[in-house]
This record gives sequence, structure tokens and C-alpha cells, in this order.
Amino acid sequence: MPFEVLIYSRFPKAMMARIGQRFDLMDAAGKPPAEVFTAEQLSGVRAMITAGGTPLRAEVMDTLPALRAIVCYGTGYDGVDLDAAAKRGIAVGHSPAANAAAVADLAVTLMLAATRHLLPADEYVRSGNWAAAKPSPLLRPQPGNPGRRVGVYGMGEIGRKIASRVAAFETEVGYFSRSRHDVPYQYLPSLEALAEWCSVLMIAVRAGADTHHAVNAGILRKLGKDGYVVNISRGSVIDQAALVTALTESTIAGAGLDVFENEPHAPDTLTAFPNVVLTPHIGGHTTESHTAMQDCVIANLEAFFAGKPLPYEVRGA
Amino acid sequence: MPFEVLIYSRFPKAMMARIGQRFDLMDAAGKPPAEVFTAEQLSGVRAMITAGGTPLRAEVMDTLPALRAIVCYGTGYDGVDLDAAAKRGIAVGHSPAANAAAVADLAVTLMLAATRHLLPADEYVRSGNWAAAKPSPLLRPQPGNPGRRVGVYGMGEIGRKIASRVAAFETEVGYFSRSRHDVPYQYLPSLEALAEWCSVLMIAVRAGADTHHAVNAGILRKLGKDGYVVNISRGSVIDQAALVTALTESTIAGAGLDVFENEPHAPDTLTAFPNVVLTPHIGGHTTESHTAMQDCVIANLEAFFAGKPLPYEVRGA
Repeated sequence: MPFEVLIYSRFPKAMMARIGQRFDLMDAAGKPPAEVFTAEQLSGVRAMITAGGTPLRAEVMDTLPALRAIVCYGTGYDGVDLDAAAKRGIAVGHSPAANAAAVADLAVTLMLAATRHLLPADEYVRSGNWAAAKPSPLLRPQPGNPGRRVGVYGMGEIGRKIASRVAAFETEVGYFSRSRHDVPYQYLPSLEALAEWCSVLMIAVRAGADTHHAVNAGILRKLGKDGYVVNISRGSVIDQAALVTALTESTIAGAGLDVFENEPHAPDTLTAFPNVVLTPHIGGHTTESHTAMQDCVIANLEAFFAGKPLPYEVRGA
Repeated sequence: MPFEVLIYSRFPKAMMARIGQRFDLMDAAGKPPAEVFTAEQLSGVRAMITAGGTPLRAEVMDTLPALRAIVCYGTGYDGVDLDAAAKRGIAVGHSPAANAAAVADLAVTLMLAATRHLLPADEYVRSGNWAAAKPSPLLRPQPGNPGRRVGVYGMGEIGRKIASRVAAFETEVGYFSRSRHDVPYQYLPSLEALAEWCSVLMIAVRAGADTHHAVNAGILRKLGKDGYVVNISRGSVIDQAALVTALTESTIAGAGLDVFENEPHAPDTLTAFPNVVLTPHIGGHTTESHTAMQDCVIANLEAFFAGKPLPYEVRGA
């Protein structure tokens, strides 16, 4: 008989199909498990799958007395209360690097689209304004990539892949990270220094208390009126209200955002701008990336039920 | 007194500002010069600036008896009747490679945006459909870049820059060109073989009689239902009607187009598709690229008026 696994976050069914062939899935579909299942049903649950960004607090863990493994689908685990899990002897796993290429690709897509005014350009063609030779201030020539200074905030697997991709566009790449890495890019000693130096700031840092609102009004001011910010990490890293103000006052040139403070809500104050490119948290959303993330989830669960350590355990959890 | 130079195509005034500081510009603004200027005014014109894609035939040259230099703003010169120019002893110049990085950047932008369904993703956020959790078939996971086979048709300066950029996305790069080049990419012996091999076809070949409608229904069929075509060269290289048919019948997955058969007109049959990304021929349209193109135009004109050969002369013209 297959082992039972609770699905905590709301996932499209297709993402769970392969996992469902190996385990008996109990889908809470984003609701508190105790609302969907009886206490008796939950009493046997030893492992759960969650999306790393979904808040998962001690109170929920307490409704699952047998829980010993939380497996995050994806790289992030910022929603999981790691201390609470550790206190209860619950191992936390994730899918490190499985989606790095897909996320880095989207980051570069957002940078290229935002800096080149791709959306207004497409709209100019589709609306017939091109054929009518209507002038469009948004289609004035923009600075190109050769020589552009691109700053990468965070130099994990995703940051490295962003850096190697943007370097191919003849840009200069700099980065700031808690520690220096053995990479062929200029190290800047602080986020302030990076924002001052670059004209495109790519946020690839892990979300957490130490990076909450790290990109604030002051950082955006240093980025400057020709600067762009791209975020594929978590919405919490940017002070979103400060970003809206900077866009409103044109103290930065634009933005590319895959993540938001309160997903799936992107505020109207943000969606009103033509100089932003917005995507619905699809960074890791490619077919290969999903397969790789599912491989990690399956490997973590199979090891757990075999009584072995999780192969992709969150360090420090 | 500065030398007179006729402006033949319709250019935004900003593009001619630097050139206008050095020469006395007579702007026909896209109209036949004989409609705008008197025969006497035209009798002294020894040099003109044109956009390479604008048709410039023998009859027009005959209205300019003193014409000895046609200077194309940009890389292309496909609109210029080179035989007619040669017969009249008119040198033809252009701006080789000046816009190569800008054009290659846009090609990759179009590829990334089309394959990742960027426009539907942005629309999904802006429309509120994400917040409403409305399903969107266009936002199903798509194949990502690692391992993707990208075929580059044409291996000039632009093709090489496209290849080095897309290779950074962990793709496999192949190419077809009239001759093999010393490049680290797989050579395919024909356009048919390239289309069969790749899933994204990047058109970077020079426009001309030999490449007219080279990407036809047969090539699109070989590209296949998961295939994308990206064109930043000239609209004439694709059989646009065949492309519309392939998109209508979903025998290819999508397209990214900066150029069209009959610019500035993109037919309604094309603008109706959500799986195409359309830009108004802005490939070379960055500030640095315009400066570099203007440098070439100025260098060509200054050499010409000094009685020297054009430094950027079209070979074989």
C-alpha cells in the first residue's frame, strides 16, 4: 500500500500527477488540513508537500501529530517555520537548483523585455499605430546591452545562471552577496554600492528576515532614473510601495517582476504602468524544471519513507 | 559651405540631428525627390542617405544626375538597385555591424518572450485573471532553454551575436549559411536540415533575391508544431502568408517578428495571434546603435566629399 502524503498548498493537478503514481495523495488544496480532513485522517500523516512560499506555521504542524517531513516543491522554503519544524523533529526538504535555469531565463527575459520596451512595441504594432505612423514616446531608442552594468543581488545557483546569461550580451556584470564567490564578476561590498554601480538590478537573493524589504526607497534612488529592477526571487525582498512611488515619480525607468508582496495580487497601482513587465510567478515554470522539481520531491519522500535522511534537506533546518 | 545631402527615406528628425550638424540636409521625407524639390535643386545633389530597405530604383537615380553616393543608414541595402547604381558610377555605402548587437539582442528577446509566453503572462496579471485564479491554457509549462536546439540561419555579424547569446542559455546551437564558418556551432548542410534539426529558427540572413521567401511552407512544416520562428532580418525572407497559415493550423508553436512583408503594415491575420510577439522594426533601435550607424553615415559622406573611397562600401556594389 502506498504511503500517504498530504498536499498542503494549492497545486495544479498536472504537477502532482507523477508524484501521485507513487504516493497516496491527500489534497487539502490550500485549505487548512483540519477543515478538509478529520483528525483521525490527519493522525497518520507523516509527510507533506508544500510550496515554499506558502506560510506553514507551528499551529498547522500541531494538527499533524505524526508529521516528520515537510517537502517543498521548488527551491524556496521561506514560508516554512523552520524553528517550529526543528522543535517537532520534522525534516524539511526542497528542490535545490532544480528550477535555476528556468528562473534565470525568466529573469533575463524580463530584463530584456523591460529595457527594450517590448510590451509597448508589440502594442504599437497590434493597435495599428505603427501603420498610422503615430508617434510613441515609449518607442524612442533606449540604451542597449553592450557596456550596460548589470548588478546581481545574490550569487546562488540562480544568481550565477543570471550572471552567465547576461554576460553573453556584452554587459559588465557585478554582484553583491553575503560572501564573495569564485566567479568572474566584480564584487560590490554592499547592496547600496551595487545599486549605485549598476543600471539593472537583478534580485536573486533568498527571501528571509534578513532580506525583507532590502530593496527599499533608498536602494531604488541609488539605482536612478535610467535604472531597472528585476525580481524573480520573492515579493518580500522589494518594498513594493516604495517601488510604486519610484515608478510614479519616474525616479527609476522600469521594472520586471515575477513575484509580488501579496500573490496572486498585483496591485492596480503597479499594473497601470506601461514600463513594467509582470508575470504570475512562473519563474520555475518550464516542463523540464517541473520534472526536476518532482524528481527532488519524489527522492525526498522515498528516502524519508525508507527511514533515510532527505537527500535534498534544507541546510540548517 | 556644407555639402548638400538628400534624405530619401522617412527618418525621425532625431536620427538626423548629428548628421545635420555636418551637412546641409534636403529632406524628401519618403516622397519622390522630384515631388519635393525642383529639378534645379536636385541637379546639384551628389550624395543621399536612405534606409536600406526602402526601394530605390533606377528611375529615382535618373532624377539626380549628379548623384555619386548612396549611403544607407543601417546594415541592409536590399532596397537599392545595385546594378543601376553601378551603371551610373554611384558608390553605395552602409553601416556594417554597427547595429549587430542591438539586432541580436532583440532577436533573443523575441525568442525568449515567444517561447515563454511572456505577453499572455503579463496580460494574465494585468487583467486580474491571476488574482481570480482563472485557468489559462497559454500559461501551461512550456519547454525551457537548456538542451533546446536553436538554429541560426545566416552567420554574419548578427548571426554570430545571436549564437553566442543563445548559447549562454545552455542551448545547443546549429546554423546554416552559404559557407561554413570557424564558429563553435554545428553546421547543417541546408535550411531544410536546419529547420528539421532545431525547435527555434532564428532568421539572420541578408535579404535578397536568393533568400526571398526562403522560409516557406515546407520549412515551417519541418520546424514542426513545437517550433518557433524569429525574424529580425527582412520580412521578405519569410513567406508571410505561409506563416499565417502555419499559425492558424497550429503546425508551428509561435513566432517573434520584428520585420514584415509590407512595413509598416502587420496584417490583422497576424496581429490576432496571442502566440506571436510583434515589434515595429526596432532591431537596430538603441541609442548606441544609432550613434554607431550615424558614425558610419558621417564617415562615408566625409570620405566621399573628400574624394576618397567610402570606408563602409557595400561589397560588390
